[in-house]
Amino acid sequence: MKTALTIAGSDSSGGAGIQADIKTMTMNGVYAMSAVTALTAQNTMGVTGISEVTPEFLRLQLCAIFDDIFPDAVKTGMVASTELIETIADILKERGARNIVVDPVMVATSGAKLLKDDAIEVLENRLFPLADVITPNIPEAELISGLGIHDRAGMEKAAASIGEKYGCSVLLKGGHSVSDASDVLYSKGGGLTWFEGKRIDNPNTHGTGCTLSSAIASNLAKGLGLGDSVRRAKEYISGALAAMLDLGHGSGPMQHNYLLFPEK
Amino acid sequence: MKTALTIAGSDSSGGAGIQADIKTMTMNGVYAMSAVTALTAQNTMGVTGISEVTPEFLRLQLCAIFDDIFPDAVKTGMVASTELIETIADILKERGARNIVVDPVMVATSGAKLLKDDAIEVLENRLFPLADVITPNIPEAELISGLGIHDRAGMEKAAASIGEKYGCSVLLKGGHSVSDASDVLYSKGGGLTWFEGKRIDNPNTHGTGCTLSSAIASNLAKGLGLGDSVRRAKEYISGALAAMLDLGHGSGPMQHNYLLFPEK
Repeated sequence: MKTALTIAGSDSSGGAGIQADIKTMTMNGVYAMSAVTALTAQNTMGVTGISEVTPEFLRLQLCAIFDDIFPDAVKTGMVASTELIETIADILKERGARNIVVDPVMVATSGAKLLKDDAIEVLENRLFPLADVITPNIPEAELISGLGIHDRAGMEKAAASIGEKYGCSVLLKGGHSVSDASDVLYSKGGGLTWFEGKRIDNPNTHGTGCTLSSAIASNLAKGLGLGDSVRRAKEYISGALAAMLDLGHGSGPMQHNYLLFPEK
Repeated sequence: MKTALTIAGSDSSGGAGIQADIKTMTMNGVYAMSAVTALTAQNTMGVTGISEVTPEFLRLQLCAIFDDIFPDAVKTGMVASTELIETIADILKERGARNIVVDPVMVATSGAKLLKDDAIEVLENRLFPLADVITPNIPEAELISGLGIHDRAGMEKAAASIGEKYGCSVLLKGGHSVSDASDVLYSKGGGLTWFEGKRIDNPNTHGTGCTLSSAIASNLAKGLGLGDSVRRAKEYISGALAAMLDLGHGSGPMQHNYLLFPEK
Protein backbone atom coordinates (compact mmCIF):
# COMPACT_ATOMS: atom_id res chain seq x y z
CA MET A 1 0.00 0.00 0.00
CA LYS A 2 1.30 3.44 -0.92
CA THR A 3 1.63 6.15 1.71
CA ALA A 4 0.86 9.88 1.86
CA LEU A 5 1.65 12.64 4.33
CA THR A 6 -0.38 15.76 5.10
CA ILE A 7 1.33 18.77 6.69
CA ALA A 8 -1.49 21.05 7.82
CA GLY A 9 -3.62 22.33 10.68
CA SER A 10 -6.05 20.29 12.76
CA ASP A 11 -9.78 21.10 12.44
CA SER A 12 -11.63 19.95 15.55
CA SER A 13 -14.90 19.79 13.61
CA GLY A 14 -13.39 17.17 11.30
CA GLY A 15 -14.36 18.69 7.95
CA ALA A 16 -11.10 20.35 6.88
CA GLY A 17 -7.39 20.28 7.77
CA ILE A 18 -5.61 17.03 8.59
CA GLN A 19 -8.95 15.44 9.45
CA ALA A 20 -10.27 15.95 5.89
CA ASP A 21 -6.91 14.88 4.50
CA ILE A 22 -6.80 11.65 6.53
CA LYS A 23 -10.38 10.81 5.53
CA THR A 24 -9.63 11.55 1.88
CA MET A 25 -6.37 9.57 1.76
CA THR A 26 -7.97 6.62 3.55
CA MET A 27 -10.89 6.56 1.10
CA ASN A 28 -8.54 6.92 -1.87
CA GLY A 29 -6.50 3.84 -1.02
CA VAL A 30 -3.32 5.12 0.58
CA TYR A 31 -1.95 4.99 4.13
CA ALA A 32 -2.27 8.46 5.72
CA MET A 33 0.23 10.16 8.05
CA SER A 34 0.13 13.71 9.38
CA ALA A 35 2.37 16.44 10.77
CA VAL A 36 0.30 19.06 12.56
CA THR A 37 1.27 22.73 12.04
CA ALA A 38 -1.41 24.19 14.32
CA LEU A 39 -4.38 23.07 16.34
CA THR A 40 -7.64 24.94 15.84
CA ALA A 41 -10.82 24.99 17.87
CA GLN A 42 -13.44 25.48 15.18
CA ASN A 43 -16.78 24.40 13.87
CA THR A 44 -18.83 25.19 10.76
CA MET A 45 -19.58 28.68 12.12
CA GLY A 46 -16.03 29.86 12.77
CA VAL A 47 -12.67 29.52 14.49
CA THR A 48 -12.55 30.12 18.27
CA GLY A 49 -8.92 29.24 18.96
CA ILE A 50 -5.57 28.60 17.26
CA SER A 51 -2.50 27.06 18.87
CA GLU A 52 0.50 26.91 16.56
CA VAL A 53 3.26 24.34 17.06
CA THR A 54 6.89 25.41 17.32
CA PRO A 55 9.23 24.89 14.35
CA GLU A 56 11.18 22.44 16.54
CA PHE A 57 8.10 20.32 17.22
CA LEU A 58 7.08 20.34 13.56
CA ARG A 59 10.59 19.14 12.73
CA LEU A 60 10.30 16.33 15.29
CA GLN A 61 7.04 15.16 13.72
CA LEU A 62 8.42 15.28 10.18
CA CYS A 63 11.65 13.50 11.11
CA ALA A 64 9.74 10.74 12.93
CA ILE A 65 7.73 10.19 9.75
CA PHE A 66 10.55 10.33 7.19
CA ASP A 67 12.84 8.18 9.40
CA ASP A 68 10.39 5.29 9.36
CA ILE A 69 7.68 5.34 6.67
CA PHE A 70 8.73 7.37 3.65
CA PRO A 71 5.67 9.04 2.12
CA ASP A 72 4.99 8.40 -1.57
CA ALA A 73 3.34 11.82 -1.75
CA VAL A 74 3.14 14.92 0.44
CA LYS A 75 0.42 17.55 0.67
CA THR A 76 0.88 20.85 2.48
CA GLY A 77 -2.05 22.99 3.60
CA MET A 78 -2.47 25.94 5.96
CA VAL A 79 0.89 27.04 7.39
CA ALA A 80 0.78 30.52 8.85
CA SER A 81 4.29 31.47 9.95
CA THR A 82 7.51 31.98 8.01
CA GLU A 83 9.46 29.76 10.43
CA LEU A 84 7.10 26.82 9.94
CA ILE A 85 7.16 27.19 6.15
CA GLU A 86 10.96 27.28 6.22
CA THR A 87 11.06 24.16 8.39
CA ILE A 88 8.82 22.31 5.93
CA ALA A 89 10.86 23.43 2.91
CA ASP A 90 14.13 22.45 4.60
CA ILE A 91 12.96 18.96 5.47
CA LEU A 92 11.22 18.20 2.17
CA LYS A 93 14.46 19.18 0.42
CA GLU A 94 16.80 17.34 2.83
CA ARG A 95 14.76 14.17 2.62
CA GLY A 96 14.16 14.22 -1.13
CA ALA A 97 10.37 14.18 -0.78
CA ARG A 98 8.49 13.48 -4.02
CA ASN A 99 5.01 14.10 -5.41
CA ILE A 100 4.58 17.33 -3.47
CA VAL A 101 1.19 19.05 -3.68
CA VAL A 102 1.12 22.56 -2.21
CA ASP A 103 -2.29 24.00 -1.40
CA PRO A 104 -1.23 27.65 -1.06
CA VAL A 105 -3.74 28.64 1.58
CA MET A 106 -3.41 32.45 1.57
CA VAL A 107 -6.77 33.98 0.77
CA ALA A 108 -10.22 32.72 1.71
CA THR A 109 -12.77 32.38 -1.07
CA SER A 110 -14.36 35.43 0.53
CA GLY A 111 -11.21 37.41 -0.32
CA ALA A 112 -9.91 37.71 3.25
CA LYS A 113 -6.13 37.43 3.46
CA LEU A 114 -5.10 34.56 5.75
CA LEU A 115 -1.30 35.00 5.72
CA LYS A 116 0.98 37.93 6.46
CA ASP A 117 3.05 39.31 3.60
CA ASP A 118 6.34 37.84 4.84
CA ALA A 119 4.78 34.37 5.09
CA ILE A 120 3.41 34.68 1.56
CA GLU A 121 6.88 35.58 0.30
CA VAL A 122 8.49 32.56 1.98
CA LEU A 123 5.75 30.25 0.74
CA GLU A 124 6.31 31.44 -2.81
CA ASN A 125 10.10 31.46 -2.74
CA ARG A 126 10.81 28.36 -0.67
CA LEU A 127 7.87 25.98 -1.09
CA PHE A 128 6.55 26.58 -4.62
CA PRO A 129 9.87 25.62 -6.30
CA LEU A 130 9.73 22.24 -4.49
CA ALA A 131 6.13 21.56 -5.51
CA ASP A 132 5.06 19.23 -8.28
CA VAL A 133 1.75 21.06 -8.39
CA ILE A 134 0.19 23.96 -6.50
CA THR A 135 -3.57 24.42 -6.25
CA PRO A 136 -4.53 28.11 -5.83
CA ASN A 137 -8.07 29.42 -5.95
CA ILE A 138 -8.76 32.57 -7.97
CA PRO A 139 -7.97 35.17 -5.27
CA GLU A 140 -4.72 33.31 -4.49
CA ALA A 141 -3.75 33.10 -8.15
CA GLU A 142 -4.41 36.85 -8.52
CA LEU A 143 -2.18 37.56 -5.54
CA ILE A 144 0.62 35.25 -6.72
CA SER A 145 0.58 36.31 -10.37
CA GLY A 146 -0.33 39.96 -9.89
CA LEU A 147 -2.91 39.52 -12.66
CA GLY A 148 -6.64 40.18 -12.47
CA ILE A 149 -8.69 37.10 -13.37
CA HIS A 150 -12.13 37.67 -14.86
CA ASP A 151 -12.66 34.84 -17.35
CA ARG A 152 -11.28 31.54 -18.62
CA ALA A 153 -8.60 33.24 -20.69
CA GLY A 154 -7.46 35.10 -17.59
CA MET A 155 -7.27 31.82 -15.65
CA GLU A 156 -5.10 30.26 -18.36
CA LYS A 157 -2.78 33.26 -18.41
CA ALA A 158 -2.37 33.36 -14.63
CA ALA A 159 -1.81 29.58 -14.34
CA ALA A 160 0.89 29.65 -17.02
CA SER A 161 2.51 32.73 -15.53
CA ILE A 162 2.75 31.14 -12.06
CA GLY A 163 3.93 27.79 -13.41
CA GLU A 164 6.67 29.38 -15.51
CA LYS A 165 7.85 31.56 -12.66
CA TYR A 166 8.15 28.76 -10.07
CA GLY A 167 8.86 25.79 -12.35
CA CYS A 168 5.87 23.73 -11.22
CA SER A 169 2.47 22.65 -12.47
CA VAL A 170 -0.51 24.75 -11.39
CA LEU A 171 -4.11 23.70 -10.95
CA LEU A 172 -6.09 26.93 -10.85
CA LYS A 173 -9.47 26.28 -9.25
CA GLY A 174 -12.23 28.23 -10.95
CA GLY A 175 -15.19 29.82 -9.26
CA HIS A 176 -18.84 29.70 -10.19
CA SER A 177 -18.74 33.25 -11.45
CA VAL A 178 -15.57 32.92 -13.54
CA SER A 179 -15.57 29.45 -15.06
CA ASP A 180 -18.71 27.68 -13.92
CA ALA A 181 -16.56 25.77 -11.38
CA SER A 182 -14.20 24.36 -14.00
CA ASP A 183 -10.45 24.23 -13.24
CA VAL A 184 -7.48 24.67 -15.53
CA LEU A 185 -4.20 22.77 -15.19
CA TYR A 186 -0.96 24.26 -16.43
CA SER A 187 1.45 21.33 -16.73
CA LYS A 188 5.12 21.96 -16.14
CA GLY A 189 6.82 22.20 -19.49
CA GLY A 190 3.76 23.68 -21.10
CA GLY A 191 0.23 22.65 -21.93
CA LEU A 192 -3.14 23.69 -20.54
CA THR A 193 -5.94 21.26 -19.75
CA TRP A 194 -9.45 22.12 -18.64
CA PHE A 195 -11.37 19.99 -16.16
CA GLU A 196 -15.03 20.81 -16.54
CA GLY A 197 -16.89 21.29 -13.29
CA LYS A 198 -19.95 19.34 -12.30
CA ARG A 199 -22.26 21.84 -10.65
CA ILE A 200 -23.64 20.39 -7.43
CA ASP A 201 -26.11 22.53 -5.57
CA ASN A 202 -24.74 21.90 -2.08
CA PRO A 203 -23.99 24.85 0.23
CA ASN A 204 -21.91 22.61 2.51
CA THR A 205 -18.41 23.08 1.11
CA HIS A 206 -16.25 23.23 4.27
CA GLY A 207 -12.94 21.53 3.44
CA THR A 208 -13.22 21.20 -0.35
CA GLY A 209 -9.76 22.75 -0.92
CA CYS A 210 -8.08 20.40 1.57
CA THR A 211 -9.93 17.44 0.14
CA LEU A 212 -9.02 18.20 -3.47
CA SER A 213 -5.30 18.59 -2.77
CA SER A 214 -5.10 15.46 -0.62
CA ALA A 215 -7.03 13.42 -3.20
CA ILE A 216 -4.52 14.57 -5.85
CA ALA A 217 -1.65 13.60 -3.54
CA SER A 218 -3.23 10.17 -2.96
CA ASN A 219 -3.49 9.57 -6.70
CA LEU A 220 0.09 10.70 -7.33
CA ALA A 221 1.24 8.35 -4.52
CA LYS A 222 -0.44 5.49 -6.35
CA GLY A 223 1.57 6.31 -9.47
CA LEU A 224 -1.08 8.03 -11.59
CA GLY A 225 -0.04 10.90 -13.86
CA LEU A 226 -0.96 14.44 -12.88
CA GLY A 227 -3.88 14.78 -15.31
CA ASP A 228 -5.47 11.51 -14.18
CA SER A 229 -4.80 12.43 -10.55
CA VAL A 230 -6.68 15.69 -10.94
CA ARG A 231 -9.54 14.13 -12.88
CA ARG A 232 -10.09 11.40 -10.29
CA ALA A 233 -9.75 13.85 -7.40
CA LYS A 234 -12.49 16.00 -8.92
CA GLU A 235 -14.70 12.93 -9.36
CA TYR A 236 -14.13 12.05 -5.70
CA ILE A 237 -15.12 15.54 -4.52
CA SER A 238 -18.19 15.55 -6.75
CA GLY A 239 -19.33 12.31 -5.12
CA ALA A 240 -18.60 13.60 -1.62
CA LEU A 241 -20.64 16.76 -2.31
CA ALA A 242 -23.46 14.92 -4.08
CA ALA A 243 -24.02 12.77 -0.99
CA MET A 244 -25.62 15.95 0.46
CA LEU A 245 -24.47 15.51 4.03
CA ASP A 246 -25.91 18.30 6.16
CA LEU A 247 -24.19 18.78 9.52
CA GLY A 248 -23.70 21.88 11.65
CA HIS A 249 -25.17 25.35 11.56
CA GLY A 250 -22.77 26.92 9.03
CA SER A 251 -21.22 25.66 5.80
CA GLY A 252 -20.89 22.01 6.72
CA PRO A 253 -18.48 19.27 5.72
CA MET A 254 -18.70 16.84 2.82
CA GLN A 255 -19.30 13.14 3.22
CA HIS A 256 -15.85 11.67 2.70
CA ASN A 257 -16.97 8.06 3.09
CA TYR A 258 -19.79 8.21 0.51
CA LEU A 259 -18.33 5.30 -1.44
CA LEU A 260 -19.03 2.93 1.45
CA PHE A 261 -22.07 4.62 2.96
CA PRO A 262 -24.24 6.48 0.44
CA GLU A 263 -26.36 9.03 2.32
CA LYS A 264 -30.09 8.47 2.12
CA MET B 1 -25.28 10.23 9.09
CA LYS B 2 -24.41 9.69 12.75
CA THR B 3 -21.43 11.44 14.31
CA ALA B 4 -18.65 10.44 16.70
CA LEU B 5 -15.98 12.32 18.60
CA THR B 6 -12.53 11.14 19.63
CA ILE B 7 -10.71 12.86 22.49
CA ALA B 8 -7.14 11.64 22.34
CA GLY B 9 -3.56 12.31 21.32
CA SER B 10 -2.29 12.79 17.77
CA ASP B 11 0.07 10.13 16.36
CA SER B 12 2.16 11.61 13.54
CA SER B 13 2.74 8.14 12.09
CA GLY B 14 -1.00 7.75 11.57
CA GLY B 15 -1.46 4.31 13.11
CA ALA B 16 -2.84 5.16 16.55
CA GLY B 17 -4.42 8.14 18.38
CA ILE B 18 -6.91 10.41 16.67
CA GLN B 19 -5.58 9.32 13.28
CA ALA B 20 -6.55 5.68 13.91
CA ASP B 21 -9.85 6.85 15.39
CA ILE B 22 -10.72 9.05 12.39
CA LYS B 23 -9.86 6.24 9.96
CA THR B 24 -11.90 3.75 11.98
CA MET B 25 -14.94 5.99 12.35
CA THR B 26 -14.86 6.92 8.67
CA MET B 27 -14.69 3.26 7.62
CA ASN B 28 -17.45 2.35 10.07
CA GLY B 29 -19.97 4.77 8.64
CA VAL B 30 -20.00 7.74 11.00
CA TYR B 31 -18.81 11.34 10.70
CA ALA B 32 -15.60 11.75 12.74
CA MET B 33 -14.60 14.78 14.85
CA SER B 34 -11.62 15.12 17.17
CA ALA B 35 -10.39 17.07 20.18
CA VAL B 36 -6.63 16.73 20.50
CA THR B 37 -5.22 16.27 24.03
CA ALA B 38 -1.55 16.14 23.00
CA LEU B 39 0.55 16.08 19.88
CA THR B 40 3.19 13.40 19.62
CA ALA B 41 6.11 12.99 17.28
CA GLN B 42 6.31 9.23 16.89
CA ASN B 43 6.74 6.37 14.52
CA THR B 44 6.56 2.59 14.79
CA MET B 45 9.86 2.57 16.69
CA GLY B 46 9.03 5.02 19.46
CA VAL B 47 7.97 8.46 20.65
CA THR B 48 10.44 11.34 20.13
CA GLY B 49 8.30 14.25 21.33
CA ILE B 50 5.12 15.09 23.23
CA SER B 51 3.40 18.48 23.35
CA GLU B 52 0.35 18.57 25.59
CA VAL B 53 -2.46 21.08 25.04
CA THR B 54 -3.63 23.31 27.87
CA PRO B 55 -6.92 22.54 29.63
CA GLU B 56 -8.24 25.87 28.24
CA PHE B 57 -7.47 24.89 24.65
CA LEU B 58 -8.98 21.42 25.10
CA ARG B 59 -12.11 23.12 26.43
CA LEU B 60 -12.21 25.43 23.37
CA GLN B 61 -12.04 22.44 21.04
CA LEU B 62 -14.74 20.52 22.90
CA CYS B 63 -17.07 23.52 23.12
CA ALA B 64 -16.67 24.24 19.39
CA ILE B 65 -17.72 20.66 18.70
CA PHE B 66 -20.64 20.39 21.13
CA ASP B 67 -21.94 23.86 20.17
CA ASP B 68 -22.41 22.84 16.54
CA ILE B 69 -22.43 19.10 15.77
CA PHE B 70 -23.48 17.06 18.79
CA PRO B 71 -21.66 13.70 18.74
CA ASP B 72 -23.79 10.56 18.87
CA ALA B 73 -20.89 8.82 20.63
CA VAL B 74 -17.64 9.83 22.31
CA LYS B 75 -14.43 7.89 22.70
CA THR B 76 -11.62 8.98 25.01
CA GLY B 77 -8.06 7.69 24.67
CA MET B 78 -4.68 8.72 26.05
CA VAL B 79 -5.03 11.68 28.44
CA ALA B 80 -2.00 12.13 30.65
CA SER B 81 -2.70 14.96 33.11
CA THR B 82 -5.26 15.34 35.88
CA GLU B 83 -6.32 18.80 34.61
CA LEU B 84 -7.11 17.49 31.12
CA ILE B 85 -9.06 14.53 32.49
CA GLU B 86 -11.05 16.89 34.73
CA THR B 87 -11.79 19.17 31.77
CA ILE B 88 -13.09 16.24 29.74
CA ALA B 89 -15.24 14.94 32.60
CA ASP B 90 -16.67 18.41 33.27
CA ILE B 91 -17.68 18.98 29.65
CA LEU B 92 -19.06 15.50 28.98
CA LYS B 93 -21.22 15.95 32.08
CA GLU B 94 -22.27 19.56 31.35
CA ARG B 95 -23.23 18.72 27.78
CA GLY B 96 -24.99 15.45 28.50
CA ALA B 97 -22.75 13.41 26.22
CA ARG B 98 -23.99 9.90 25.48
CA ASN B 99 -22.51 6.59 24.35
CA ILE B 100 -19.19 7.25 26.07
CA VAL B 101 -16.41 4.72 25.51
CA VAL B 102 -13.38 5.20 27.77
CA ASP B 103 -10.18 3.49 26.71
CA PRO B 104 -8.34 3.77 30.04
CA VAL B 105 -4.83 4.09 28.62
CA MET B 106 -2.70 3.61 31.75
CA VAL B 107 -0.36 0.69 31.22
CA ALA B 108 1.29 -0.48 28.01
CA THR B 109 0.88 -4.13 27.06
CA SER B 110 4.56 -4.41 28.05
CA GLY B 111 3.56 -3.48 31.62
CA ALA B 112 5.08 0.04 31.59
CA LYS B 113 2.95 2.54 33.50
CA LEU B 114 1.92 5.45 31.24
CA LEU B 115 0.09 7.66 33.77
CA LYS B 116 1.06 9.09 37.12
CA ASP B 117 -0.86 7.91 40.18
CA ASP B 118 -2.85 11.13 40.60
CA ALA B 119 -4.00 11.00 36.96
CA ILE B 120 -5.05 7.37 37.38
CA GLU B 121 -7.11 8.35 40.41
CA VAL B 122 -8.90 11.17 38.56
CA LEU B 123 -9.52 8.95 35.54
CA GLU B 124 -11.13 6.34 37.76
CA ASN B 125 -13.15 8.71 39.93
CA ARG B 126 -14.26 11.28 37.37
CA LEU B 127 -14.34 9.58 33.95
CA PHE B 128 -15.28 5.94 34.66
CA PRO B 129 -18.64 6.85 36.28
CA LEU B 130 -19.58 8.74 33.08
CA ALA B 131 -18.63 5.87 30.77
CA ASP B 132 -21.05 3.49 29.13
CA VAL B 133 -18.18 1.08 28.67
CA ILE B 134 -14.48 1.06 29.50
CA THR B 135 -11.99 -1.11 27.62
CA PRO B 136 -8.96 -2.02 29.80
CA ASN B 137 -6.28 -4.51 28.83
CA ILE B 138 -5.14 -7.04 31.41
CA PRO B 139 -2.43 -4.92 33.11
CA GLU B 140 -4.91 -2.02 33.33
CA ALA B 141 -7.66 -4.22 34.74
CA GLU B 142 -5.21 -5.56 37.34
CA LEU B 143 -4.30 -2.03 38.36
CA ILE B 144 -7.91 -0.83 38.51
CA SER B 145 -9.33 -3.86 40.32
CA GLY B 146 -6.32 -4.68 42.46
CA LEU B 147 -6.76 -8.32 41.42
CA GLY B 148 -4.20 -10.56 39.73
CA ILE B 149 -5.48 -11.98 36.42
CA HIS B 150 -4.09 -15.32 35.29
CA ASP B 151 -6.96 -17.06 33.49
CA ARG B 152 -10.47 -16.64 32.11
CA ALA B 153 -12.06 -16.91 35.56
CA GLY B 154 -9.77 -14.13 36.76
CA MET B 155 -10.80 -11.96 33.82
CA GLU B 156 -14.48 -12.44 34.62
CA LYS B 157 -13.94 -11.60 38.26
CA ALA B 158 -11.94 -8.44 37.51
CA ALA B 159 -14.40 -7.20 34.85
CA ALA B 160 -17.36 -7.65 37.20
CA SER B 161 -15.52 -6.04 40.10
CA ILE B 162 -14.63 -2.93 38.04
CA GLY B 163 -18.09 -2.67 36.51
CA GLU B 164 -19.83 -2.91 39.88
CA LYS B 165 -17.51 -0.35 41.45
CA TYR B 166 -17.94 2.31 38.75
CA GLY B 167 -21.43 1.51 37.49
CA CYS B 168 -20.42 0.92 33.89
CA SER B 169 -19.92 -1.92 31.45
CA VAL B 170 -16.39 -3.28 31.07
CA LEU B 171 -14.81 -4.95 28.06
CA LEU B 172 -11.69 -6.64 29.40
CA LYS B 173 -9.33 -7.37 26.53
CA GLY B 174 -7.59 -10.69 26.94
CA GLY B 175 -4.03 -11.47 25.96
CA HIS B 176 -2.66 -14.39 24.02
CA SER B 177 -1.27 -15.95 27.17
CA VAL B 178 -4.39 -15.56 29.32
CA SER B 179 -7.40 -16.11 27.08
CA ASP B 180 -6.09 -16.85 23.58
CA ALA B 181 -7.00 -13.26 22.62
CA SER B 182 -10.65 -13.58 23.64
CA ASP B 183 -12.32 -10.67 25.48
CA VAL B 184 -14.98 -10.70 28.16
CA LEU B 185 -17.76 -8.12 28.47
CA TYR B 186 -19.32 -7.36 31.82
CA SER B 187 -22.61 -5.61 31.03
CA LYS B 188 -23.89 -3.03 33.47
CA GLY B 189 -26.60 -4.62 35.56
CA GLY B 190 -24.92 -8.01 35.36
CA GLY B 191 -24.10 -10.61 32.79
CA LEU B 192 -20.82 -11.77 31.29
CA THR B 193 -20.33 -12.43 27.57
CA TRP B 194 -17.25 -13.86 25.91
CA PHE B 195 -16.09 -12.76 22.48
CA GLU B 196 -13.82 -15.41 21.13
CA GLY B 197 -10.62 -14.15 19.55
CA LYS B 198 -9.58 -14.92 16.00
CA ARG B 199 -5.85 -15.48 16.13
CA ILE B 200 -4.15 -13.55 13.35
CA ASP B 201 -0.42 -13.98 13.09
CA ASN B 202 0.44 -10.34 12.42
CA PRO B 203 3.15 -8.63 14.49
CA ASN B 204 1.94 -5.19 13.33
CA THR B 205 -0.48 -4.24 16.08
CA HIS B 206 0.22 -0.50 16.55
CA GLY B 207 -3.10 1.18 17.35
CA THR B 208 -5.30 -1.86 17.99
CA GLY B 209 -6.57 -0.46 21.32
CA CYS B 210 -7.51 2.89 19.78
CA THR B 211 -9.13 1.17 16.83
CA LEU B 212 -11.23 -1.18 18.95
CA SER B 213 -12.62 1.56 21.19
CA SER B 214 -13.42 3.88 18.28
CA ALA B 215 -15.09 1.08 16.33
CA ILE B 216 -17.25 0.35 19.37
CA ALA B 217 -18.11 4.07 19.64
CA SER B 218 -19.01 4.16 15.92
CA ASN B 219 -21.37 1.21 16.34
CA LEU B 220 -23.00 2.71 19.43
CA ALA B 221 -23.45 6.00 17.50
CA LYS B 222 -25.33 4.06 14.83
CA GLY B 223 -27.71 2.73 17.48
CA LEU B 224 -26.42 -0.82 17.89
CA GLY B 225 -26.53 -2.44 21.32
CA LEU B 226 -23.31 -2.88 23.26
CA GLY B 227 -22.90 -6.59 22.53
CA ASP B 228 -23.37 -6.11 18.78
CA SER B 229 -21.11 -3.07 18.87
CA VAL B 230 -18.30 -5.08 20.43
CA ARG B 231 -18.80 -8.06 18.10
CA ARG B 232 -18.69 -5.90 14.97
CA ALA B 233 -15.73 -3.90 16.26
CA LYS B 234 -13.78 -7.12 16.78
CA GLU B 235 -14.68 -8.27 13.25
CA TYR B 236 -13.45 -4.95 11.89
CA ILE B 237 -10.11 -5.24 13.70
CA SER B 238 -9.70 -8.85 12.56
CA GLY B 239 -10.11 -7.72 8.97
CA ALA B 240 -7.73 -4.79 9.40
CA LEU B 241 -5.08 -7.11 10.87
CA ALA B 242 -5.67 -9.88 8.33
CA ALA B 243 -4.88 -7.45 5.48
CA MET B 244 -1.26 -7.87 6.63
CA LEU B 245 -0.12 -4.33 5.98
CA ASP B 246 3.60 -4.08 6.71
CA LEU B 247 4.86 -0.50 7.14
CA GLY B 248 7.70 0.90 9.23
CA HIS B 249 10.58 -0.70 11.07
CA GLY B 250 8.78 -1.45 14.37
CA SER B 251 5.31 -2.78 15.18
CA GLY B 252 3.43 -1.23 12.27
CA PRO B 253 -0.15 -0.03 11.83
CA MET B 254 -3.16 -1.98 10.62
CA GLN B 255 -4.86 -1.40 7.31
CA HIS B 256 -7.96 0.56 8.30
CA ASN B 257 -9.32 0.81 4.75
CA TYR B 258 -9.14 -2.92 3.97
CA LEU B 259 -12.84 -3.04 3.10
CA LEU B 260 -12.25 -0.80 0.08
CA PHE B 261 -8.71 -1.79 -0.78
CA PRO B 262 -7.83 -5.39 0.14
CA GLU B 263 -4.04 -5.70 0.37
CA LYS B 264 -2.45 -8.04 -2.16
